[in-house]
Amino acid sequence: MNYETRLKELKIELPEAPKSVGSYTPVVIQGTTAYLSGQVSKYGTARFIQGRIGKDLTLEQGQEAARLAALNVISLIRSAIGFDKLDRILRVVGYVNADPSFYEIPQVVNGASDLLVLLFQDQGIHARSSVGVASLPMNAAVEIEVTLQLKA
Amino acid sequence: MNYETRLKELKIELPEAPKSVGSYTPVVIQGTTAYLSGQVSKYGTARFIQGRIGKDLTLEQGQEAARLAALNVISLIRSAIGFDKLDRILRVVGYVNADPSFYEIPQVVNGASDLLVLLFQDQGIHARSSVGVASLPMNAAVEIEVTLQLKA
Amino acid sequence: MNYETRLKELKIELPEAPKSVGSYTPVVIQGTTAYLSGQVSKYGTARFIQGRIGKDLTLEQGQEAARLAALNVISLIRSAIGFDKLDRILRVVGYVNADPSFYEIPQVVNGASDLLVLLFQDQGIHARSSVGVASLPMNAAVEIEVTLQLKA
Repeated sequence: MNYETRLKELKIELPEAPKSVGSYTPVVIQGTTAYLSGQVSKYGTARFIQGRIGKDLTLEQGQEAARLAALNVISLIRSAIGFDKLDRILRVVGYVNADPSFYEIPQVVNGASDLLVLLFQDQGIHARSSVGVASLPMNAAVEIEVTLQLKA
Repeated sequence: MNYETRLKELKIELPEAPKSVGSYTPVVIQGTTAYLSGQVSKYGTARFIQGRIGKDLTLEQGQEAARLAALNVISLIRSAIGFDKLDRILRVVGYVNADPSFYEIPQVVNGASDLLVLLFQDQGIHARSSVGVASLPMNAAVEIEVTLQLKA
Repeated sequence: MNYETRLKELKIELPEAPKSVGSYTPVVIQGTTAYLSGQVSKYGTARFIQGRIGKDLTLEQGQEAARLAALNVISLIRSAIGFDKLDRILRVVGYVNADPSFYEIPQVVNGASDLLVLLFQDQGIHARSSVGVASLPMNAAVEIEVTLQLKA
């Protein structure tokens, strides 16, 4: 599977990958494990889905926010790791900026999970936790944290 | 230690293990590490402890909710991994659906931790983080995420 | 780099390291990975920064809270692992007790990240996720969870 070709087939254009900012860095590699920093629901400087789902935003907008967060993950895999080195996605934590009365947290995070599986197919299937949080960086609607397995 | 025998001694009946739902899966194994998806406070279709602790639910109900979440973890270990392959529990994150004025978060998560240690004894002692969140899937009272070490 | 010397140069006095409490333990080691339990914004019994940032506490107080949490991490590395065995910090999750209207979550967690890098320098640079949560243990202002790489 060539993921560059697959991205083109799916008509997915990746945002520029997030950069290191001071004390932390987007990717840390330990052997065949890569820890990625939490990625929020923005697309470069062009777009930023902000607000609380179930109050300011609908479920559908939340799913799109999760998808944007996953696009940053994919962009990081491409630029900081290399598609050819990815073995598979191990783990995803989805943090949803959710109104306390909004319970469709997994449905929101599916926006990220489904994109990862659409692109990486079986290599994209992961363990996952999804939670609704009180607040996210810059009022992002979604943040996802991903751990990867790299090829040996 | 035979964990099947120990379950019987403790009169613990496990719920049916959670299944894969689309893009994510309950267990991902990388070498001797197993990442489990977040498990919520339900017992099959028979029982689901839902609501906010400190508002809708008491501390004791929260502890029972954490215990139910841990039962799903144990059921996953048995069915998707095998008790004989478990080396020990490495890490637990306890997410508590908590009223902002409720601070007894660790006491709630003890409902899960204590059960893991009751069953797995020294092999059940783990590193742990406990946080109160704004909302959980389907208004679950507790969600726990567990990482395991498997035998080589 | 001798971290004891560096602590003295920086005039940092570490609090006593947190101890095991029942079912969980501050540090679990698996090969060259160490999982640390979540550490809150307290300094032994002398000081405990509690409350909600953006409501009860300012950003600056939140940063100091994150710094206190990181001091416990450093104290655990020294006493439970040994500075000489640390390879580097891999991953930090910063949980901020945040008012739902407070979005400067990363700026708060910088209080922890910056201290880790001040002390451990390049070995302190980590992957990071930062989220605002509804409630933390004992109304702590900040909790951080850290994963380490140890020398082989």
